[in-house]
Amino acid sequence: MLPELPEELILGIGDDAAVLRIGGRDVLFTTDVMVEGVHFDMAFATPFQVGHKLVTVNVSDIYAMAGRPAYMLLTMSIPAHRATVSSDLPATVRSDLINMSGAGGSGFVDEFLDGVADALSLYNVELIGGDVTSSQGGISVSATVIGFADAPVLRKGAAPGDRLYVTGNLGDSACGLHLLQRINRPVVIERQETINSPLPWQVMGPLLHRHLMPVVSAPVTGVRPNAMMDVSDGLSIDLRRLCTESGVGARVYETSLPRSVEMIEAATFLGIDPTMLSLCGGEDYQYLFTSPEPVSGSWCIGEITDGGLFFIDSDNKQRELVRCGYEHFTSDCKEWDRSIPSKCKERKQNQ
Amino acid sequence: MLPELPEELILGIGDDAAVLRIGGRDVLFTTDVMVEGVHFDMAFATPFQVGHKLVTVNVSDIYAMAGRPAYMLLTMSIPAHRATVSSDLPATVRSDLINMSGAGGSGFVDEFLDGVADALSLYNVELIGGDVTSSQGGISVSATVIGFADAPVLRKGAAPGDRLYVTGNLGDSACGLHLLQRINRPVVIERQETINSPLPWQVMGPLLHRHLMPVVSAPVTGVRPNAMMDVSDGLSIDLRRLCTESGVGARVYETSLPRSVEMIEAATFLGIDPTMLSLCGGEDYQYLFTSPEPVSGSWCIGEITDGGLFFIDSDNKQRELVRCGYEHFTSDCKEWDRSIPSKCKERKQNQ
Repeated sequence: MLPELPEELILGIGDDAAVLRIGGRDVLFTTDVMVEGVHFDMAFATPFQVGHKLVTVNVSDIYAMAGRPAYMLLTMSIPAHRATVSSDLPATVRSDLINMSGAGGSGFVDEFLDGVADALSLYNVELIGGDVTSSQGGISVSATVIGFADAPVLRKGAAPGDRLYVTGNLGDSACGLHLLQRINRPVVIERQETINSPLPWQVMGPLLHRHLMPVVSAPVTGVRPNAMMDVSDGLSIDLRRLCTESGVGARVYETSLPRSVEMIEAATFLGIDPTMLSLCGGEDYQYLFTSPEPVSGSWCIGEITDGGLFFIDSDNKQRELVRCGYEHFTSDCKEWDRSIPSKCKERKQNQ
Repeated sequence: MLPELPEELILGIGDDAAVLRIGGRDVLFTTDVMVEGVHFDMAFATPFQVGHKLVTVNVSDIYAMAGRPAYMLLTMSIPAHRATVSSDLPATVRSDLINMSGAGGSGFVDEFLDGVADALSLYNVELIGGDVTSSQGGISVSATVIGFADAPVLRKGAAPGDRLYVTGNLGDSACGLHLLQRINRPVVIERQETINSPLPWQVMGPLLHRHLMPVVSAPVTGVRPNAMMDVSDGLSIDLRRLCTESGVGARVYETSLPRSVEMIEAATFLGIDPTMLSLCGGEDYQYLFTSPEPVSGSWCIGEITDGGLFFIDSDNKQRELVRCGYEHFTSDCKEWDRSIPSKCKERKQNQ
């Protein structure tokens, strides 16, 4: 019999996940909500994609702490007329959930839960509970993901002189969103639907996929970053948060920003500046981290400094890093407009 | 250094809380959503009361597993115009949360978070994280509470011959709701507001309090129930769930149902049958449990049998236990009508 150690709060509000030490283990907790009309719009996404992405955005927060996601709780609030009971309910996660409150549906619920189940399987995460209720307005879904970490990496910890890394391309998701707004209807990529357009599908497909149904993976191996977080609201605002937490500054080089050939081709086609997409777009679900040592397999985009946030453009001119990225309540634009800074009033940066 | 035991899923979907064994300890997880227009109505409740009750309903699920609540994650989705930034934000839980996304408010947010903080302090639960977003429709809030138990008690486990207990009065909350519908506006009980009416305040006050801002406590000490759950949707439906999980039946005696003198007086005044309120009302947040041994300090309301659900009325006549209680999606009545079965179509009982 092991001694029953009291649990201990290692890290509370303010990072990608909270950390409790339970029975000698570091357990991570994160929660994210997705609200119809704010985070998703059924005019542009399928229920499957919404369910899939809900799992991914929560898993991303666990990976961002150098953790391994393991369990999930799910909530759904759905207008009754969009949750009619289906006559054919397979005995899976779905029926468990549906049985919780009699929800079910040939409509949103079935497809949404298929997307959730698909992503849970992808990340090897198990659904252990939830709450399903009706709603009077639109659909709202949330998840709490529980993970484990040997040594959680926080936003705090970056030191002047550290190299600044991201784990993959920036701007793909935001570019995919722009394409989707042109297409102006859901694209059922989970069933291999393709779109005919002047832009080849091999350019559009990966960008739409990255926006509608991003897949994330553990950020780094063989290295212990000094600080880390996921890039969910845009590199500019998320780097600002990491630097604030660590009490440092940073310098980012335009020529070092990793950008896909697809994004550059599509952005050019759409007449959007690829650099703005990379800095402000958001929903990249890559990881931003700092390390005193060189790291292979990730992109070094700059360095940590004593203070200030600067951007060195492709002409080698230094300027202040643009203030952009999505914030609820302090911007007048919807989430899906967030990659278009001109559409939104200037935002208060308080995080 | 303790060995790192792998975590193990002890109990998944279907009970009041899920159970994971982590580092040798049983950790409980529960989540509950409250949606405006379904679970609460700002025409009848203050934001403080909504926040307070959100914590309580989650804590109740932990107590119902014989657990001790310890930590909480919170989500809020609020229309931007109801979350304007206040100029005077004290440096508490509130400011942490508000800083997460720039929300804040002289409106809903501040008062709601006061209610959350008050209940967290009452139950000695610590807020460790959350997510705050805007919404396009109404307000939706949810919480995930994490607790610990030496030996979790499940819904499953009741055995024929067990005595059936509840920990306190049934029907008070539902009766309070009826009173509130008559009053037809919020009553600020957290600031000691009282109401003048033909019914004395010492009758109305406790009932309104039980509905608007219930307080729960650990269900039983010195006894290990065979099965337990909280009474949240009404004794009738919740007992049905406990019996289904345990594969047993039950017999309930009308004369044994614990009912407050206030509830009986108010129900009589309102012309409502107190027994229907006790069986169908819901939101009692008492605990229903079974034990082979006599238990002091709780009310024995019947016994567990081999099968069937029966009600012995005050004339000693046996009948089938009435089917009632709130279910999302299978009823056409709002939550606050649930104590009035005639207002709702007959419901499918699938849990």
